[in-house]
Amino acid sequence: MFPSECLPTRRNFLKAGAAFAVAPTTATAFSLPTSADDSEATNVIGPRKGYSPQIGTLVSQMIWMREAVLRSVKGMSQKDLDFLLDAKANTTGSLLLHLAATDRLFQINTFEGNSMKDENAMPADFKQKFAIAMDLGEPARKSIKGNSLDFYLDALSQVREKTFAEFRKRDDQWLATVDTGWFWGPTNNYCKWFHVCEHESNHNGQIKLLRGRIPGLKPAGE
Amino acid sequence: MFPSECLPTRRNFLKAGAAFAVAPTTATAFSLPTSADDSEATNVIGPRKGYSPQIGTLVSQMIWMREAVLRSVKGMSQKDLDFLLDAKANTTGSLLLHLAATDRLFQINTFEGNSMKDENAMPADFKQKFAIAMDLGEPARKSIKGNSLDFYLDALSQVREKTFAEFRKRDDQWLATVDTGWFWGPTNNYCKWFHVCEHESNHNGQIKLLRGRIPGLKPAGE
Repeated sequence: MFPSECLPTRRNFLKAGAAFAVAPTTATAFSLPTSADDSEATNVIGPRKGYSPQIGTLVSQMIWMREAVLRSVKGMSQKDLDFLLDAKANTTGSLLLHLAATDRLFQINTFEGNSMKDENAMPADFKQKFAIAMDLGEPARKSIKGNSLDFYLDALSQVREKTFAEFRKRDDQWLATVDTGWFWGPTNNYCKWFHVCEHESNHNGQIKLLRGRIPGLKPAGE
Repeated sequence: MFPSECLPTRRNFLKAGAAFAVAPTTATAFSLPTSADDSEATNVIGPRKGYSPQIGTLVSQMIWMREAVLRSVKGMSQKDLDFLLDAKANTTGSLLLHLAATDRLFQINTFEGNSMKDENAMPADFKQKFAIAMDLGEPARKSIKGNSLDFYLDALSQVREKTFAEFRKRDDQWLATVDTGWFWGPTNNYCKWFHVCEHESNHNGQIKLLRGRIPGLKPAGE
């Protein structure tokens, strides 16, 4: 009875509760953190060492979300990553590279001050590595294939490391700074990077839907 | 070249940029908010009046995310909402009710102190209105159908109003409070409600995938 994308496997919460009975916790819900470690546990959203408070809170959301994506693609072979649901679908591999491309795109805008209104002004590395994955569709179906899971995971982690390194150089005032020229309306850096975060969940939902239709592969939930 | 779930329609960002040329903004990216109104614009993540600072920030994320879902289902008929991709798919209608069920489930846990380890202890309204939508699968395919879009939107807004009303009674210390007995590990209320938020994006990705396959319906992006 539980939204399952946060779980290693889909299971009934009540059954999960029963499992806890094997190693009971003190289980007083709504208690405060019992140790300093608790405050930086993956499932605790909040500030993180090395980051300003609000940026750290966003980082904790991004880490939580990324772990959910990694669970969904665990154990996928090259063939699984190239699986196409139908002629207009995206493969799981292309969606993973699309997520890395999205991180890079928002780096270019929010760290490098590129307003992104001139395609010619996009950095060469974006054009070469990420433009096709960013757009998805037919060019992505044609060219993003034949890669191992590690290829995609390396792309994701390399871009993300750079994102977090840049976050560590900035503060909460930067996060709150509003760009009045952005195409979806006035928006702050928090909104742009929150979008990068929830965008992973958007495609994670699709990845799980695809995974559930790949012959021989155990579903990852809904 | 842009992640599209945040857009009214999928369009190239550069084309969107060109549209801005018709009504140019002062467009100095990275400037601070120019008016008090900017700080509560939908695309500005941050505190909201009536809520403690961190709860308000979460509320701004939840509102942003919900608007993306509403864009994805705009104009859908009863038939569209009942569209089944295949024998194990969920309909868009059932996914919308699943989102309302998720809000209600986390209300029961975080506002009403129900640890959710005993199914018999779940409130009657949850069992009656939401249990099937929460679980999805075959029972949902059989029973959640024949409803208009307004039926689902009303369910979503009614539950969400209650969530926000309860948020207004609480503070940031409550949001940071850790539940050591939760089944995915020690976790705070922020993480639980952030999950409710990103969970909407997870299913929004699926809703858009489904929408792109409903005959005669214009896709809502990727």
